[in-house]
Amino acid sequence: MMTYSIGIDIGGTNTDIGLVSSEGRCLARKNLQTAKYFDAELYVKDICLMIEELKKDNDVKEIDGIGIAAPLGNYYTGCIENATNLNFKGIINLRLLFAKYTESPITVSNDANAAAYGELVYGGARGMKNFIMFTLGTGVGSGIVIDGKLVHGKTGSAGELGHVILIPGGRKCGCGRCGCLETYASGTGIKATMLEVMSQHPEYRGVLAQIPRAELTSKSVGDAANAGDPLAIEVFEKTGEWLGLAMANAVAFSSPEAVFLMGGPVKAGEVLLRPTRASFQKNLCFVYDGSVGIKVSELPHNDAAILGAAALTKA
Amino acid sequence: MMTYSIGIDIGGTNTDIGLVSSEGRCLARKNLQTAKYFDAELYVKDICLMIEELKKDNDVKEIDGIGIAAPLGNYYTGCIENATNLNFKGIINLRLLFAKYTESPITVSNDANAAAYGELVYGGARGMKNFIMFTLGTGVGSGIVIDGKLVHGKTGSAGELGHVILIPGGRKCGCGRCGCLETYASGTGIKATMLEVMSQHPEYRGVLAQIPRAELTSKSVGDAANAGDPLAIEVFEKTGEWLGLAMANAVAFSSPEAVFLMGGPVKAGEVLLRPTRASFQKNLCFVYDGSVGIKVSELPHNDAAILGAAALTKA
Repeated sequence: MMTYSIGIDIGGTNTDIGLVSSEGRCLARKNLQTAKYFDAELYVKDICLMIEELKKDNDVKEIDGIGIAAPLGNYYTGCIENATNLNFKGIINLRLLFAKYTESPITVSNDANAAAYGELVYGGARGMKNFIMFTLGTGVGSGIVIDGKLVHGKTGSAGELGHVILIPGGRKCGCGRCGCLETYASGTGIKATMLEVMSQHPEYRGVLAQIPRAELTSKSVGDAANAGDPLAIEVFEKTGEWLGLAMANAVAFSSPEAVFLMGGPVKAGEVLLRPTRASFQKNLCFVYDGSVGIKVSELPHNDAAILGAAALTKA
Repeated sequence: MMTYSIGIDIGGTNTDIGLVSSEGRCLARKNLQTAKYFDAELYVKDICLMIEELKKDNDVKEIDGIGIAAPLGNYYTGCIENATNLNFKGIINLRLLFAKYTESPITVSNDANAAAYGELVYGGARGMKNFIMFTLGTGVGSGIVIDGKLVHGKTGSAGELGHVILIPGGRKCGCGRCGCLETYASGTGIKATMLEVMSQHPEYRGVLAQIPRAELTSKSVGDAANAGDPLAIEVFEKTGEWLGLAMANAVAFSSPEAVFLMGGPVKAGEVLLRPTRASFQKNLCFVYDGSVGIKVSELPHNDAAILGAAALTKA
């Protein structure tokens, strides 16, 4: 029998709310502007009104639960903890706030954990017991599934592989340390690498030299690489080298059957994936040879965040 | 009621067999020379005879099971898989071989996993749900406990943190790659660091300059450091820097409540632990601040391997 759940993806600018069927389709969605709210209770109240509208419009009487992917969302406490990109400061107890307006069970986690769980419940990791998801975006997040369950650890903050120090003494990271994977393999990192490579090639007159520095993005580097720009290709060669090393190191921890990639920079495709696979194979410890593959998320990109959040209700 | 189990620690030279009580004491032990055997079946038969003697001598009628810690021992298959330091080549199915001579349940794993489980069942990790054990010896091994269970992963070879690449392009490792933690933080790595540091100080006339290079060990470096030798102290400063970084990186994976250290080099004490803690704190991502401690194994060193192997019977 078909059942339904709600997935909520909280971002600093927008909040997406989707009605998801048990077969993994986002049937309908609504949106509100996170940045317009300064009162968390009012914000949650408006979300709950939208959930009721989604149910009514789609003739859904019952939902299994509400899954919420939020920056610094903590699975154990149900809180958002000191997110820097939200107007709501300090500890926001989503579980308590939602309980005022709904009786549905609430599950909270961060976006990378939600992405991993979305892949497990609705995507390419269905049936897998052990895998790792890397999400590449403004930063690098990760979600780790062991024995069919998300790893939360003592604090609820397990799986922060974007903040593994890959290059000791390397690039300065927003976390205050140096050399984190995030500074190399995120969209921001790809842009930084492009600026480095351009600075080493003052003779470069290609398409990316025509874009003002402030407007350069990992997407423009990806488009240039796919159009054959040699410097942009070099940037993705370096990015793949770093990312493949980080992925091989992660394998030595949990011996997964697959490592998944998701997010904007992954849309560049083979220009990133080919050097990533090569570096992964080169850096993988021989005991794991042949046991683990690199895969790209199979969730539809537009709905991935909502599906991931909805999947948390099955956690 | 007191119950009993058998722990077997298989090494390339010796095999230790111990009778362990449920309160975590090794009541009696026997030993045979692994290296004298070329026939695995005869080897297992002799072990089983010794187990019967141990039971008889100590008036123990029943045992809960037999736990075996073996190089490249695989928890899933019950086999030793292509261990290079044993006379038995290829795949040795210990579970099948033991079943010929005993009806007790057999559990097999590698020595680092056994060490982690020993700490969980009998040592300082009692009551913990999430921790990581690093074992420093000729190499570096690790065992990872998440939600109260050892992580085995898809292959049974999860938790090879000695083969995480810590320094890209760094020291050549026995695994064929470069920069593995093992090349820096093992006994072998400590000796290599001492040789490096001595080569940078041709004026050095200290105690370690009096020892032939072939006889230099991590123990002699530790003794010299504790006696105030400045170069030996520098070696442990570097070792602690590397080890603390590797431990901090591992925390970002599973958010444990403690990271344990065990093994010969750890006996050097504060001369290693102080720089390790300093590096760990410096390299730990802020989200884990205050949530995780560094601890030294609480198992008695002489019995640790047997207790760890016996603890596998509770896995």
